[in-house]
Amino acid sequence: MSIKCGVVGATGYTGLELIKILIHHPKFDLVYLGSSEGGENVKTLFKGLDRVLDMPILKANPKDIAKVCEVVFLALPHKASMSFARELLDFGVRVVDLSADYRLKLKNYEEFYTKHIDKEHLKDAVYGLPELYREKIKNAKLVANPGCYPTATLLGLIPFLPYIDENYPLFIDAKSGVSGAGKKCTPNTHYVTINENIFAYNPIKHRHSIEIKEKIEEFTNKEFEINFVPQLIPITRGMLVNSYVCLKKDIDEKEILREFYKDEEFIRIRENPVDIKSVSGTNFCDIFVMKNNKSLFISTAIDNLLRGASSQAVVNANIMFSLPENLGIPKIAYIP
Amino acid sequence: MSIKCGVVGATGYTGLELIKILIHHPKFDLVYLGSSEGGENVKTLFKGLDRVLDMPILKANPKDIAKVCEVVFLALPHKASMSFARELLDFGVRVVDLSADYRLKLKNYEEFYTKHIDKEHLKDAVYGLPELYREKIKNAKLVANPGCYPTATLLGLIPFLPYIDENYPLFIDAKSGVSGAGKKCTPNTHYVTINENIFAYNPIKHRHSIEIKEKIEEFTNKEFEINFVPQLIPITRGMLVNSYVCLKKDIDEKEILREFYKDEEFIRIRENPVDIKSVSGTNFCDIFVMKNNKSLFISTAIDNLLRGASSQAVVNANIMFSLPENLGIPKIAYIP
Amino acid sequence: MSIKCGVVGATGYTGLELIKILIHHPKFDLVYLGSSEGGENVKTLFKGLDRVLDMPILKANPKDIAKVCEVVFLALPHKASMSFARELLDFGVRVVDLSADYRLKLKNYEEFYTKHIDKEHLKDAVYGLPELYREKIKNAKLVANPGCYPTATLLGLIPFLPYIDENYPLFIDAKSGVSGAGKKCTPNTHYVTINENIFAYNPIKHRHSIEIKEKIEEFTNKEFEINFVPQLIPITRGMLVNSYVCLKKDIDEKEILREFYKDEEFIRIRENPVDIKSVSGTNFCDIFVMKNNKSLFISTAIDNLLRGASSQAVVNANIMFSLPENLGIPKIAYIP
Amino acid sequence: MSIKCGVVGATGYTGLELIKILIHHPKFDLVYLGSSEGGENVKTLFKGLDRVLDMPILKANPKDIAKVCEVVFLALPHKASMSFARELLDFGVRVVDLSADYRLKLKNYEEFYTKHIDKEHLKDAVYGLPELYREKIKNAKLVANPGCYPTATLLGLIPFLPYIDENYPLFIDAKSGVSGAGKKCTPNTHYVTINENIFAYNPIKHRHSIEIKEKIEEFTNKEFEINFVPQLIPITRGMLVNSYVCLKKDIDEKEILREFYKDEEFIRIRENPVDIKSVSGTNFCDIFVMKNNKSLFISTAIDNLLRGASSQAVVNANIMFSLPENLGIPKIAYIP
Repeated sequence: MSIKCGVVGATGYTGLELIKILIHHPKFDLVYLGSSEGGENVKTLFKGLDRVLDMPILKANPKDIAKVCEVVFLALPHKASMSFARELLDFGVRVVDLSADYRLKLKNYEEFYTKHIDKEHLKDAVYGLPELYREKIKNAKLVANPGCYPTATLLGLIPFLPYIDENYPLFIDAKSGVSGAGKKCTPNTHYVTINENIFAYNPIKHRHSIEIKEKIEEFTNKEFEINFVPQLIPITRGMLVNSYVCLKKDIDEKEILREFYKDEEFIRIRENPVDIKSVSGTNFCDIFVMKNNKSLFISTAIDNLLRGASSQAVVNANIMFSLPENLGIPKIAYIP
Repeated sequence: MSIKCGVVGATGYTGLELIKILIHHPKFDLVYLGSSEGGENVKTLFKGLDRVLDMPILKANPKDIAKVCEVVFLALPHKASMSFARELLDFGVRVVDLSADYRLKLKNYEEFYTKHIDKEHLKDAVYGLPELYREKIKNAKLVANPGCYPTATLLGLIPFLPYIDENYPLFIDAKSGVSGAGKKCTPNTHYVTINENIFAYNPIKHRHSIEIKEKIEEFTNKEFEINFVPQLIPITRGMLVNSYVCLKKDIDEKEILREFYKDEEFIRIRENPVDIKSVSGTNFCDIFVMKNNKSLFISTAIDNLLRGASSQAVVNANIMFSLPENLGIPKIAYIP
Repeated sequence: MSIKCGVVGATGYTGLELIKILIHHPKFDLVYLGSSEGGENVKTLFKGLDRVLDMPILKANPKDIAKVCEVVFLALPHKASMSFARELLDFGVRVVDLSADYRLKLKNYEEFYTKHIDKEHLKDAVYGLPELYREKIKNAKLVANPGCYPTATLLGLIPFLPYIDENYPLFIDAKSGVSGAGKKCTPNTHYVTINENIFAYNPIKHRHSIEIKEKIEEFTNKEFEINFVPQLIPITRGMLVNSYVCLKKDIDEKEILREFYKDEEFIRIRENPVDIKSVSGTNFCDIFVMKNNKSLFISTAIDNLLRGASSQAVVNANIMFSLPENLGIPKIAYIP
Repeated sequence: MSIKCGVVGATGYTGLELIKILIHHPKFDLVYLGSSEGGENVKTLFKGLDRVLDMPILKANPKDIAKVCEVVFLALPHKASMSFARELLDFGVRVVDLSADYRLKLKNYEEFYTKHIDKEHLKDAVYGLPELYREKIKNAKLVANPGCYPTATLLGLIPFLPYIDENYPLFIDAKSGVSGAGKKCTPNTHYVTINENIFAYNPIKHRHSIEIKEKIEEFTNKEFEINFVPQLIPITRGMLVNSYVCLKKDIDEKEILREFYKDEEFIRIRENPVDIKSVSGTNFCDIFVMKNNKSLFISTAIDNLLRGASSQAVVNANIMFSLPENLGIPKIAYIP
């Protein structure tokens, strides 16, 4: 017996990835595609899906959606997302929100984004990092799917939080493929800007920084100085995050990692430095760790559009509906 | 009831793609991986397949293979392939050969490649272009899987052969991603050679030319002057082939194409010029055609490793074992 | 004694290349930079030119320009260009126009572009392909700098025009780096569209087609059927054009090429297929030719922004002012 | 009056860049090209230099070189380099060595590389970072040209050494284009490995780490814990190095940088994060710095083959021969 689901924000890259996963999902039945404009069809918008899915993208309306969907994935920009989520939740539809709207505490959200218009549901939103919030996700009506940078960063850092010295700053050097900047045509997504180039943007002040900081402090009840430097690299998809931290005492870093993730299907601990190609197209997060006296180097790789967005969203939905976590989740990389 | 199959030449790119397809194939059960050297495991050789497939790659031996496999995919270099194929066939194993060894008439093979050492089976080999040789493939013991360039070229040209004027030369301008040059490290696969560059190699004299010519003449019983110019472009996978020909008379080129492929699931006829991204990761061949007086421009795009090799090989195996042609065949592109 | 020159349209890619050449030109003294908007400085607009050139880009005004410049390079879009050129010429300033505005016969221009507003000067404009129009350029007040596609195509075809059979269509398969599409942010310049992809745009109907056709017919007094297919490839700069034609009789194709270009410094005849890297950063046009019975394959490579625009423009200016043609013209490629 | 110079190791990428600079250098006269094998000509080895330089590359012999050259640039692998340098110096030829052979103290060299066979000259070798060792370079017979990673790292770090807290580790996250890995065809230079990918290699244990550490400790007389993580990114040339350090006290980081480099022509201090494109093709080192409480983020960009090797080598030679430092040194970037 299938669970009817919908995707709102179906025209963007994460919307597309959601569609690609849901098409063949054994339990979720994709019955609704929406966007703020509507008036398109998947097969013409994404030529690669011609002969795969012939389905209109409608001008999204919460009331209509509530009639046909038990769960909805929101792949919308922040702000737009919460106005949809609020109504859908009030109609009793469960929501996985891929925007930033329900990821942060109210205070942080309003400082870094905008005024929040759905404080009521914000209280009950669960942060959708399955390895860490699995139990809460099970009963959640609303899951706030983590950002791509925070996903890659937190999965690397969290096992080591008890051993990291909070008197030292944390340095996070992150690189993302251009799909992370979205479909919009801007100087920073122009081919000529990106090709044969690499550069940081919003270093230290990037909005994903607060998401990382908030979660780390939630886990540790300590304050950390986080220095997060995101960079665009000339690839379409994938993300590599290097975290540099200082240890309070000597540890067996590889053993800690293995132990922490010993039952986790989608975490792979690597003996050699991780690369992006081995995870592109999958929900895996690959982790490499290396110690040098009191310094610890942690490197993680994910597919920014999948583990950093859409496949993680479907894992969350699997958990919400008591399905096996790996049901319909991509594991075969786009290699070579 | 599953059909036991094996892949020999499992360490190369087409071997990898075969593995990726066969892992989840509903009917073929991948029980054997071999290479000329052996001594590896899929999960370490292809880090991206860790946690997906844990299977040794053995030093391939036809006798051992015959004990466990009903069908074998040979992803070996030419010459190496026929010595394996010969023995496997004699043991009663069915073979899909991805090399050039059984694609050509003896005379052409020996002129362009090397001395043939398995003339006996060559006689009965069926050329594995499903849209054109479906009936023969059904009963074949040995299928010669077409080359990537001939696949993309022939699927575009063949519908128009009755209308093409043989008094004019055919011009085929083809571009391939670098994976087509294989895993070997050479000046032509060095990143610095390929990046920010494009160049032809072996123009007009490329060995795939004779494969195209032979098939076209088989269909028409006429001689054509074929000018085939292959080029490397700075992408990993995918192939675009532009054919330029002259017509004998005025035709409705789009209608001819639609009619010719009207029942073909893996051919998509495009209203706008084809691109590689819409087919990468799939078995689709996208075709665009445009007429200009007596000139005809036909453009086709395929994934060189899938439709040009591995997914087409599995389609052929599906046909050989009376399975639905599309069973387990990838249709969702690696977009974005 | 230096010649005062200016660049109008200094904010685009070809404007930038003009600046890069003129900075160190031994005779031209760059005294004016303008654009339709003005209000910028080269060193901030192009960060790579900080510490190299500190010069304002002014809101361009023909009258002001005429006070300080003897010659002006117009790197403007078509239509905008002719309104500037007209005034500048009337003020007695000599003009090298990089737009399409003075390249075509009136009839062709108005059919493919827009209404012409400067018919008077159009009559006297000289087509700036130095190898072919050198004598006329010497005395020109107004040079129409050829398009990048026509430059690469014509330099390959013209030596063979006496031997090409006009009863057969000509096929021109052209590939351009993305800088050819300009600085504007559009879906076709978005990194994700271009990367790992290749596609044709406006095949056969592209506006550069008429420029090629007009010149070929001017040289031969015959009509040819031209089929021109431009494609975008995932590189920033460079262009490769393959022309496929039929011969009237047997020729020594390499000898014809050598003879035709025997005194030309910027034409290199290659024994092996040309590539883009060997010409990027230079004014060279590399040519490779190969015969196959009556078929002729001609392949040319240029830097689309230099030989296809800005360095050719400066060569033209050199000729106009009786300077050595190669004065200040880049010859060292951006290799590796 | 010109100074006769030679390049040994002329077949590699840094050899090529040396040639490209020396061709047009106003004072150095390139009279000798050598390699370990010999038997080639620049114009055929580097097709892009056809019509630019027609010069044989000889099997290098120190005695022959000493007859014609006053100064020689050695662009050889380590170990090979010192055996040439030793003889050349004994013949009275001055040497700029681009290998690692004379960069380190004997103890460090032998620990990280191999046994040193020219201890005598090692004593007098001067480390060729012009901004820091200008005075010593003037009188040097032998200049050890810095590595690309150390150049980019040290130029960023050194102005801040008095303010960096040595009780905290330094973290250096570095990204290099593939030309840094050299011309050799290996799995790590294969297009398919690099494209759409990024990965660290030899993290923390890379040999350039000791070069950075040694120089920093020489400047400060303190010990630092250096964590250096080099990564390959899918570009041909260019390097971006991010250093993360902790401050002892609050500083005006931008003012310190401006003051330190106030007379340096080839250092550009940026208000916004640096990028690679603005320096590719030049000898510039662009630096961006940003403070966050006690954390300091320093980001530098260079062209790995120029500032990280060949143009810096010619700057050093300029200084050795009392020429203006910027004579013949490239300043115009390969933009767009």
